[in-house]
Amino acid sequence: MTFHGYFRSSASWRCRIAFGLKGISPDFVPVHLRRGEQKAKGYRALNPQALVPALEVDGTVLTQSLAIIEWLDETHPTPPLLPRDPLGRAHARAFAQVIACDIHPLQNLRVLRYLKARFGQDQDGLDAWCRHWIEPGLAACEALLAGGPEAAFAFGDAPGLAEICLVPQMASADGFGLDLAPFPRLRALRGRCEALPAFADAHPSKQPDAEAD
Amino acid sequence: MTFHGYFRSSASWRCRIAFGLKGISPDFVPVHLRRGEQKAKGYRALNPQALVPALEVDGTVLTQSLAIIEWLDETHPTPPLLPRDPLGRAHARAFAQVIACDIHPLQNLRVLRYLKARFGQDQDGLDAWCRHWIEPGLAACEALLAGGPEAAFAFGDAPGLAEICLVPQMASADGFGLDLAPFPRLRALRGRCEALPAFADAHPSKQPDAEAD
Repeated sequence: MTFHGYFRSSASWRCRIAFGLKGISPDFVPVHLRRGEQKAKGYRALNPQALVPALEVDGTVLTQSLAIIEWLDETHPTPPLLPRDPLGRAHARAFAQVIACDIHPLQNLRVLRYLKARFGQDQDGLDAWCRHWIEPGLAACEALLAGGPEAAFAFGDAPGLAEICLVPQMASADGFGLDLAPFPRLRALRGRCEALPAFADAHPSKQPDAEAD
Repeated sequence: MTFHGYFRSSASWRCRIAFGLKGISPDFVPVHLRRGEQKAKGYRALNPQALVPALEVDGTVLTQSLAIIEWLDETHPTPPLLPRDPLGRAHARAFAQVIACDIHPLQNLRVLRYLKARFGQDQDGLDAWCRHWIEPGLAACEALLAGGPEAAFAFGDAPGLAEICLVPQMASADGFGLDLAPFPRLRALRGRCEALPAFADAHPSKQPDAEAD
């Protein structure tokens, strides 16, 4: 199993947490997004979308972080990353998708580059854009937690897909200067996650391709 | 089962196709996004994210179209919307997520409104922005189809999650003036889907809340 990712990529980070929770250590090939390595012919042959992550496994290539993580959960079921009951699974997936579909796509590198180059936005404009999408998304996640049963983690006694998406997203919110004070449940959840080795070891600063900011 | 959606919303459209494929007809409550009904207190109590769709079922509310569709597939397994084998499921989910995570979030109503109001973009600027994200996403989907086995539909003999996401996205591409000629596999797939009642009946123009353009 060979994992292609980038230390700063939130989607790669999600997969790293999932590998850690499952106790799996794939080989790692760094793809330097800021240097454009994802656009090289060799990488495009692996992933025609020219994005990270990609996972080579069983003679094929899996892409899209949530699809990779669900594959991992189906093929390595212990510990589970989703609740067992369909309603619980739907709530956990929805929480993850608020982040993966409605926040993260708006604030990733290729989008910020477009806003800078074509719409003339400076760093303040980019930060305001990012905060504008992150804030209501995290507010929705906070509300989704409030509606569920009390548990140590978002959807049960152990972290799963929801936390896998949340922790990198909160780090990204920090980077764009969003005040996280209005999200006490999310902050507490993040703290519980970051105390776990699978989350700590997946942090960008701990990766072989890490660079100083 | 009560479905809250909007005729023009791609995410609502996806769910409508899935209901049709499963032979289910939930009650329908329209939420008029252009009039801001999603921000009303009553709707926010259902879905704190203030987006459509939302599905009231079994005393709870499900949100996020892909989570709703996976819940539907788990609780109403016939016909299946995903392949049975984990690798096939991963490929189908990745195809869907290229659209749901990397194309659609960048071209929905709330984003276009921001670009217009804050960054001063006119319709030409908005259309160019949308085409810029739709084109490489659909190119990736076209390539994902080329890598798989020959089949009537994207990942098997019947349409599923991939087609559910593709058909509304191609309609949206039409709306933003993208030339679909470079995507012969996707166009053929769309044609096969649109001939099926579940897809035809889910079209925005057929919905009770439909309005003329």
